[in-house]
Amino acid sequence: MKIRLIISGKPKDPVTANAIDRYVSKIKKFIPFELSVMQDPRNLSDPARYSQEEWRLLEKKISPDDYVILLDERGKSYSSLEFSAKLQQWMMQRKKSVVFIIGGPYGFTAEANDCAHETLSLSKMTLQHDIASLVFTEQLYRAFTIMRGEKYHH
Amino acid sequence: MKIRLIISGKPKDPVTANAIDRYVSKIKKFIPFELSVMQDPRNLSDPARYSQEEWRLLEKKISPDDYVILLDERGKSYSSLEFSAKLQQWMMQRKKSVVFIIGGPYGFTAEANDCAHETLSLSKMTLQHDIASLVFTEQLYRAFTIMRGEKYHH
Repeated sequence: MKIRLIISGKPKDPVTANAIDRYVSKIKKFIPFELSVMQDPRNLSDPARYSQEEWRLLEKKISPDDYVILLDERGKSYSSLEFSAKLQQWMMQRKKSVVFIIGGPYGFTAEANDCAHETLSLSKMTLQHDIASLVFTEQLYRAFTIMRGEKYHH
Repeated sequence: MKIRLIISGKPKDPVTANAIDRYVSKIKKFIPFELSVMQDPRNLSDPARYSQEEWRLLEKKISPDDYVILLDERGKSYSSLEFSAKLQQWMMQRKKSVVFIIGGPYGFTAEANDCAHETLSLSKMTLQHDIASLVFTEQLYRAFTIMRGEKYHH
């Protein structure tokens, strides 16, 4: 199984970007992983049009074989143990490519929600974009340490 | 109203500590705020004893007038809007001092839970200690921008 994380919009804060990169390196020790940062749509102040254009760009990065998971505060929430078990389940189901998507400030379109296989919530709270990416990469790393029985997770 | 955040255990990661400090400065523009970092109990590998000793140290930092909120993944979860409304409610109730506590790796003791007025969950997932502090300070900042009708929160 290969995992991709697509982030719509570059991290604005180099400090957090640095912290994210360190988790990316740690995840790669466990599984083929690719972080892909997408330029956010420009010159669109209307939220609905922004989300539409964003999804048009995101769709180009997804292939029919991908198992697509949107990160959204209205999604399903898991404990770290449950999320780790979920990943393990996907590996056992021999999914080839799992793609997580962190969207921009205005949420996903109905079309995006229809296309996605699952929607995952990191928090009921609205996390700042860079912080959401940081929380997610840390959870992904944590999930693999749980699977391998490493000491990281108490 | 004054807000204090007590973190048990110094941030291990200077990069995240730096990001936390920036939110602390931003919060201080809205409300008297104090971040107090407590040395974690040393030489205690037993989780139960660790949590006991940790609470003994934390208790010294709390006064009877404090309204105490523990941050714990098993606590109540709020959306950012609900959390902002909650803070506003406390201000209207004229609470003098609200104290949030981020504990160490082994969770809080039953005694700590009995002492606390509320328990708040940032995520059902177990967040790494420094990341939990970062998420919380950003949420506190966000809560005030919501209260003031600023553009930060979409």
